[in-house]
Amino acid sequence: MSVLEPQYEFELDEALAKIRESLQGEDMEKFRSDFLDYHLYDQAQIYLALAPEERIAMYNYLSVNEMADMFEIIEEDVESIEAYLLEMNNQYAADMLANMYADNAVDMLKQLKDERIWLYLRLMPIEAAKEIRALLNYEDETAGAIMTPEFVSIVANQTVRSAMAILKSKAPDAETIYYIYVVNVDNVLVGVISLRDLIVNDEDMMIGDIMSERIVSVNVNEGQEDVAHKIRDYDFLAVPVVDENNVLLGIITVDDIIDVIDEEAVSDFSGLAGVDVEEQSENPFVAASKRLPWLITLLFLGMGTSTWISQYEGLISD
Amino acid sequence: MSVLEPQYEFELDEALAKIRESLQGEDMEKFRSDFLDYHLYDQAQIYLALAPEERIAMYNYLSVNEMADMFEIIEEDVESIEAYLLEMNNQYAADMLANMYADNAVDMLKQLKDERIWLYLRLMPIEAAKEIRALLNYEDETAGAIMTPEFVSIVANQTVRSAMAILKSKAPDAETIYYIYVVNVDNVLVGVISLRDLIVNDEDMMIGDIMSERIVSVNVNEGQEDVAHKIRDYDFLAVPVVDENNVLLGIITVDDIIDVIDEEAVSDFSGLAGVDVEEQSENPFVAASKRLPWLITLLFLGMGTSTWISQYEGLISD
Repeated sequence: MSVLEPQYEFELDEALAKIRESLQGEDMEKFRSDFLDYHLYDQAQIYLALAPEERIAMYNYLSVNEMADMFEIIEEDVESIEAYLLEMNNQYAADMLANMYADNAVDMLKQLKDERIWLYLRLMPIEAAKEIRALLNYEDETAGAIMTPEFVSIVANQTVRSAMAILKSKAPDAETIYYIYVVNVDNVLVGVISLRDLIVNDEDMMIGDIMSERIVSVNVNEGQEDVAHKIRDYDFLAVPVVDENNVLLGIITVDDIIDVIDEEAVSDFSGLAGVDVEEQSENPFVAASKRLPWLITLLFLGMGTSTWISQYEGLISD
Repeated sequence: MSVLEPQYEFELDEALAKIRESLQGEDMEKFRSDFLDYHLYDQAQIYLALAPEERIAMYNYLSVNEMADMFEIIEEDVESIEAYLLEMNNQYAADMLANMYADNAVDMLKQLKDERIWLYLRLMPIEAAKEIRALLNYEDETAGAIMTPEFVSIVANQTVRSAMAILKSKAPDAETIYYIYVVNVDNVLVGVISLRDLIVNDEDMMIGDIMSERIVSVNVNEGQEDVAHKIRDYDFLAVPVVDENNVLLGIITVDDIIDVIDEEAVSDFSGLAGVDVEEQSENPFVAASKRLPWLITLLFLGMGTSTWISQYEGLISD
């Protein structure tokens, strides 16, 4: 990259034209090199903008792993999740879900009918199905429902050097490697250490001597807003989720929490004000019609005031 | 920590009693071991709850560095920032500010009168004053105003092993070490690599071969809400800030961005709805008086409707 070369800038229309060209030319190599060169969020924008038949071609060109990476970024509340999964061959869809972080796979599965959830669970590797089934049992909007079991845990009785080796081997599957949780033989959380601490400390130091025992954790049944506030207040990148016996079950990461804070702000206010922050790009008629219930309420409130005022006027004129 | 020992739980009243005891006993050792054992956010809660004379004792017991770590967590909009700084000896205050990440120090300085800002800048080490002065020049709510210059940058032409050595030496001063920015000799941003990538790759790999050139950055004059959306959409932990020539100036981290998203939600809605999310703990009269302007508006709207309805009634009865 030379000094004059521009930074990464994403233009959806431009990207769509480029991607459509390679799809129409059935040029798998070109498609892959163009598409995978975009950031995952931008890959998702392209995917969502394509027509069903164009997306169906993509399922032949991308591995379940590549598709899973992109689906991690697609918000679970995108309405067409079910339609996207139905476009895929069932085995491909199941394998893609199995390759996602369990918390995100669960968010998607929750949009589907029960029969379809069980179909995918039957088709995916047993380990992945087990993790997902465990998460599906937690109530909506609790820590359990938004946590992922893909974290890195180690035991205290080892050196920084051996902990780094473990981290290196677990890194590809963990949602974050920036916090490493220290557990005892019963999987009870006894400490936490950041990757930063591992890096600055001498390789011969013992984990037990440098870990922090001041562990802020959340209970698996705690509400997601409490989790959000803890992560925000303490400036954490992730928080561990434990059961009543302090057994480590999962982690919740800061990117999931930003979504919660966003949702929370919207749900706290949009009902009240009759507006929706997401509406900016909508056409004015749709936007106006959303405000209608609120305006009608105001009208009736006004009529109430009017009645009250006329009675009061009657009282004076009497 | 045994299985039966409870997790870290913070109770402000309990902590205050403990801390007050050691302050009254002038027991510096006990104070330090009790106080520094709390998380920074909880240290800040204690500090904010103490009386001025109690805080003044603390400035003798804690180093400027320890005080700076705690002040990183105190929101810049806490009203009494000026009072806290005035309680300190000027040199102590200046050194504390110099020990904070520059973005947070600037947030605090902006609450002060100009003379006081210049006083602190004169008293602090030249390098720190220079960094802070540069940030003070950016307009409020732009990327420049919320970025920090404390990032880790390296050149491409070296191995993972040597990059890790640099990281290790720079880690104590960097706000995040989880992204390492790759620059050329002119300090132009040419790539980015995550600590995760450094860890999973072989130590002999060249940085230039494994770094990503798809750099999502923000311009130093961009608004903070755009920055917030980029970090949220791409699930980043930090985003680099550049000038028109793509020269790397600073970074903005996800914890700062959570505050922006919070503020944004409040400012977008609270004016409209006549409520304030922060008010939950206020007494009901204060809360009610905040809703008053909105209720009065509704009353007048109602009177308008009433007039309009009576005219219409007049029309019918005519």
